[in-house]
Amino acid sequence: MVAASGQDPASRAECACMPPNHAPMKSFGSDNHAGAHADVIAALLQANTGHTPAYGQDPWTEQAQATLRRCFGDCDPYFVFNGTAANVLSLGALLARHESVLCSELSHLNVDECGAPERVLGCKLVPIAHHDGKLVVEDIEKQLVRGGDQHFAQPRVLSIAQPTELGTVYSLAELRELTAFAHARGLLVHMDGARLPNAVVSLDCTLQEIVQGIDVLSLGGTKNGLVFGEAVILLRKDAHEQLKYLRKQAMQLASKSRFIGAQFHALFSGDLWRKNAAHAVAMAKRLEQQVKDVVTVTRPVQANAVFAILPHPAMQRVREQFFFYVWDEHTNEVRWMTSFDTSEQDVDAFAAAIRAATGSV
Amino acid sequence: MVAASGQDPASRAECACMPPNHAPMKSFGSDNHAGAHADVIAALLQANTGHTPAYGQDPWTEQAQATLRRCFGDCDPYFVFNGTAANVLSLGALLARHESVLCSELSHLNVDECGAPERVLGCKLVPIAHHDGKLVVEDIEKQLVRGGDQHFAQPRVLSIAQPTELGTVYSLAELRELTAFAHARGLLVHMDGARLPNAVVSLDCTLQEIVQGIDVLSLGGTKNGLVFGEAVILLRKDAHEQLKYLRKQAMQLASKSRFIGAQFHALFSGDLWRKNAAHAVAMAKRLEQQVKDVVTVTRPVQANAVFAILPHPAMQRVREQFFFYVWDEHTNEVRWMTSFDTSEQDVDAFAAAIRAATGSV
Amino acid sequence: MVAASGQDPASRAECACMPPNHAPMKSFGSDNHAGAHADVIAALLQANTGHTPAYGQDPWTEQAQATLRRCFGDCDPYFVFNGTAANVLSLGALLARHESVLCSELSHLNVDECGAPERVLGCKLVPIAHHDGKLVVEDIEKQLVRGGDQHFAQPRVLSIAQPTELGTVYSLAELRELTAFAHARGLLVHMDGARLPNAVVSLDCTLQEIVQGIDVLSLGGTKNGLVFGEAVILLRKDAHEQLKYLRKQAMQLASKSRFIGAQFHALFSGDLWRKNAAHAVAMAKRLEQQVKDVVTVTRPVQANAVFAILPHPAMQRVREQFFFYVWDEHTNEVRWMTSFDTSEQDVDAFAAAIRAATGSV
Amino acid sequence: MVAASGQDPASRAECACMPPNHAPMKSFGSDNHAGAHADVIAALLQANTGHTPAYGQDPWTEQAQATLRRCFGDCDPYFVFNGTAANVLSLGALLARHESVLCSELSHLNVDECGAPERVLGCKLVPIAHHDGKLVVEDIEKQLVRGGDQHFAQPRVLSIAQPTELGTVYSLAELRELTAFAHARGLLVHMDGARLPNAVVSLDCTLQEIVQGIDVLSLGGTKNGLVFGEAVILLRKDAHEQLKYLRKQAMQLASKSRFIGAQFHALFSGDLWRKNAAHAVAMAKRLEQQVKDVVTVTRPVQANAVFAILPHPAMQRVREQFFFYVWDEHTNEVRWMTSFDTSEQDVDAFAAAIRAATGSV
Repeated sequence: MVAASGQDPASRAECACMPPNHAPMKSFGSDNHAGAHADVIAALLQANTGHTPAYGQDPWTEQAQATLRRCFGDCDPYFVFNGTAANVLSLGALLARHESVLCSELSHLNVDECGAPERVLGCKLVPIAHHDGKLVVEDIEKQLVRGGDQHFAQPRVLSIAQPTELGTVYSLAELRELTAFAHARGLLVHMDGARLPNAVVSLDCTLQEIVQGIDVLSLGGTKNGLVFGEAVILLRKDAHEQLKYLRKQAMQLASKSRFIGAQFHALFSGDLWRKNAAHAVAMAKRLEQQVKDVVTVTRPVQANAVFAILPHPAMQRVREQFFFYVWDEHTNEVRWMTSFDTSEQDVDAFAAAIRAATGSV
Repeated sequence: MVAASGQDPASRAECACMPPNHAPMKSFGSDNHAGAHADVIAALLQANTGHTPAYGQDPWTEQAQATLRRCFGDCDPYFVFNGTAANVLSLGALLARHESVLCSELSHLNVDECGAPERVLGCKLVPIAHHDGKLVVEDIEKQLVRGGDQHFAQPRVLSIAQPTELGTVYSLAELRELTAFAHARGLLVHMDGARLPNAVVSLDCTLQEIVQGIDVLSLGGTKNGLVFGEAVILLRKDAHEQLKYLRKQAMQLASKSRFIGAQFHALFSGDLWRKNAAHAVAMAKRLEQQVKDVVTVTRPVQANAVFAILPHPAMQRVREQFFFYVWDEHTNEVRWMTSFDTSEQDVDAFAAAIRAATGSV
Repeated sequence: MVAASGQDPASRAECACMPPNHAPMKSFGSDNHAGAHADVIAALLQANTGHTPAYGQDPWTEQAQATLRRCFGDCDPYFVFNGTAANVLSLGALLARHESVLCSELSHLNVDECGAPERVLGCKLVPIAHHDGKLVVEDIEKQLVRGGDQHFAQPRVLSIAQPTELGTVYSLAELRELTAFAHARGLLVHMDGARLPNAVVSLDCTLQEIVQGIDVLSLGGTKNGLVFGEAVILLRKDAHEQLKYLRKQAMQLASKSRFIGAQFHALFSGDLWRKNAAHAVAMAKRLEQQVKDVVTVTRPVQANAVFAILPHPAMQRVREQFFFYVWDEHTNEVRWMTSFDTSEQDVDAFAAAIRAATGSV
Repeated sequence: MVAASGQDPASRAECACMPPNHAPMKSFGSDNHAGAHADVIAALLQANTGHTPAYGQDPWTEQAQATLRRCFGDCDPYFVFNGTAANVLSLGALLARHESVLCSELSHLNVDECGAPERVLGCKLVPIAHHDGKLVVEDIEKQLVRGGDQHFAQPRVLSIAQPTELGTVYSLAELRELTAFAHARGLLVHMDGARLPNAVVSLDCTLQEIVQGIDVLSLGGTKNGLVFGEAVILLRKDAHEQLKYLRKQAMQLASKSRFIGAQFHALFSGDLWRKNAAHAVAMAKRLEQQVKDVVTVTRPVQANAVFAILPHPAMQRVREQFFFYVWDEHTNEVRWMTSFDTSEQDVDAFAAAIRAATGSV
């Protein structure tokens, strides 16, 4: 597994994006370092009117559900607060008590949720080797053993991230191969779509195309410009009717649900989701272009992240001005992430700092 | 236990507060049917600027924590998404695996969380008889048996709601008696303060006075005018350092934490929390005054709820215009709840409808 | 709830049934203070021959399953180690994650399993008032509210003990009324039969008659003369096929399963279960007859327990010679329990001690 | 991970060790296919006398605890029913809610407990590559990252099996290196000793030497000749006082505990454990000697298992007479396991069958 670091800075002072006594600086740490998009905020304000039922019975929530059905086809959307919850509840909708989840060894699910799936669902995750973040049939197949053996947690769900945690994107053909294989072997498929719009932009496809063959989707909103809010999108026709209870038990039922609904409607009723994603992806590619001759870019840049090797002294110098994470302390691989509000000037300034630090000005 | 009903209307059409083809009407269903206070929204907008670290390392979160320390004294505040989570994580900070929670049989914890404490913490709740929603030492003491008996889940936490689910408020003397008794008998005390400001207003005391002797507080924000956001306030000096992990596992760590921090700062840095609470309580008392000669008010009106008996035909007629919950279908006891944004005109119109429906115009 | 005490004596010295430097004395503490029946031991020895598959694939296990099918009709028996497990796995076979169990407030399930159902299954138990240990329809019905309400753990299983924890026995008519009501209202019925044979003897009926209408049975073996071993008997035709996995996860799959199978076969292939039960029940009735003029017997004596009021000084004196439990320290109610190996002389000596201690010789 | 197979034969007919209409044949499938040792049975019979307190307060249990303290030094022994429970409760004694366990990817804990640790404790297991079943410091160290990071389940326990699942044995020096490293890095160490006596025999050391530096031990009894029964041996001085409650919650507290105590005393009060182990290990080595020129032995034979490659046609022919498991269907690696009651004649007959099947008579 890859060692990550700096994901939990002990103090704000460590974080170069908000230096004391300085104007705030753009962060290349994560797309959740950004605020919310202006149109999202406007929608939130418009929903702040009068009284309405709580817990998802309001017209804003219902409107947003209808909007998502237009985007994804026949489905049941359940709004939740954050991405951890979207992932865990998605799995909870599919798993029986004795069933396990096959996922990439470096998936967010496996290494960045503090063991939430095990704690909340009591299920086993089975980590699988990855190839630039992606899973392949051959590795999955090795885990499909001991069917019916009461001593063995039975594999039931294949979980894939799109885009992956390494900023790569499964092609539609790769997705079709995985979902066909999974279904043929009795597995259901979960897609962690915390940044799904970026993958759609990268593939130049539709939302419906990208989720074809998927059984349940974690749909991210926060990293695409929301204040907060994610969704579990049940795509199976025999969708688990018990999910409403699980959401409540898992402490993910918002009382003033209208404010999540209004935001999701703002994002997905038009093309705001796509514009935000397209911009973030374009900024990552712009960054790659500007630095690829001075650093080794380690992963294909297909979404909104650039992974590269940055020698330690250079790393230190760039972090005096910009915040970003070291992905692997042993190899000096770093992750640079762009957002819907990263400007061309931000990228250019950041690239200039990298070039300066590597002595390549 | 009291039978409640109508808490989960099957469709919006059932809910009189948002009738089709009508202007929205004020609801007396719950204080979470209101939106957010304008000052809270303004604070949220101001926080929507530039990049900042995620997951609670931002200056808005830190400022809000400092604000809450000024309000409650030395404490560790942890922000979470909703009240269910604040309650469950508060208990999780205090409980070992084999310990149980003593709480009112009609506590929200026991009957309105869909079993979240049992599911997430695996602990037992022991329901105790109540007196207008309050617990008394004599009933608690009956449960303090079998200490050290490995067959018996060991009572460890006393959980009380302030105000109670019946709109009553423990006096400071009652609180002192309960906390002194609890601590003398080896129990820790949790306060469910989903509407704590209303109790403070009712008692005309300070926040520090109301939590004296409390070990952990669930502090509500949503019902006091926030878009979303609650807090676990650890008041014990040996506060559980593992709570940060439990919050993440329990899927309650917000990425854009700044937006919760900004809202809490808006509420508690000045007296907005008190003004909102004072208004809601005043509206409940106004309502009580206007209807107490035509209906039987069943519980002391000490916070922002009026409980009364409303015969079924009258109930039907009033619900054509206003939404509210039937608390006990067998006795026709109903609950009317006011909010920070309930106006005097709203109350007067509602009271008039009640009087008309009961034939007492 | 009733306060029980002394169930976990801190040291053996406290227990009068095995005084230091004295010959062992018969205990009236519990029927699990007895050893195993000679025929059971013989069967265990006979099974100790050669090699056989582990984990329930052996001929002894299969033979015992066939034996239980002859006794109870079409059913799926799963052997487990102890009564806590039989109860928890029985419930686990019936419950979805958000469903609750209705049970007597003094049921073993509720007060003597250290919260195992909540810990292992994550489910809520709803305690219900009892009448000499029994539940009645009227009290159960009060809990059948809020169907479909996502905030409310949905009642799904009614759990009854037969005989009850107070040594009383539901009549067949009472059972029929409860099961008919439960099924009509969408509940499934679990019977805690840790001492089921005693109830069968008391009712002079068959095993099939006593479980008519029951969905899952915890069948006790240990208290009827086994070394160890209980069974979950799934009586529903759509029995949960996942129980084999849950048993393994719950750490209840024995490797040398043959030794449980052989014991159960010894008990239920002939009438050993009935003889053991008949004797225990007869001894309780003998005890009742001998002491009822000197103490107040507080519960109908219908199985193998006598509950009575024994003033504290008398209690102390009797406990110098015989061990038994105080059921309620506040009322001086005690429990005297007989076993398959309690002799008439044991009872007579015990009754004499009680009479002497109460000054009624 | 290695694919195993045949661990859960669908029916007895598949199992060659108990063919219909044949005398029982010795199995080389597992050491739990054997029955119990005669001395163990004798001790069980001797304990079947009179009444004694239940739930571990009896003299047999206390005697066995004293016996184990003599064997292992200052420690707290807790008896449980089976090996899954011993492993899970051992971990439960050491882990906080957010902490993870590092273990071999093919450890029984990880692949043969049906996810019991995740289900019962809610914890994450982190699988680590192995070398003939053993872990090395270098691989463990890679996992020791992100200390204090709230997003990452914090490694807390290193779990090692001695002997390993591949029949190899850590040397005392290897153990010292692992425990010293673990403690230096803030890890506690669990030893899965389901077959610990075999490792002690293999190393020709004492029980105290083999557990030096270990914090908690799962001590097997069943595979060393018991009817049933395992123990959690807490070796840390600050041993978790809450384990008694966890054992009860986890449904592992035996009522007639005397029968486990008596068996353990029989095994460990003298050298029965060592004799049983020495015999099993000797039989494995005898088998290896007899077949190593006709098959490839794939793992060092250091305990009571021989792993070898057996081509498929030969496998089929040998299984007509003897039962054993295929460890890896892809490579035709098989596992042959001996037991305390495997005779020299059994081994010789089995070796002859292998030689005949491989055409090497």
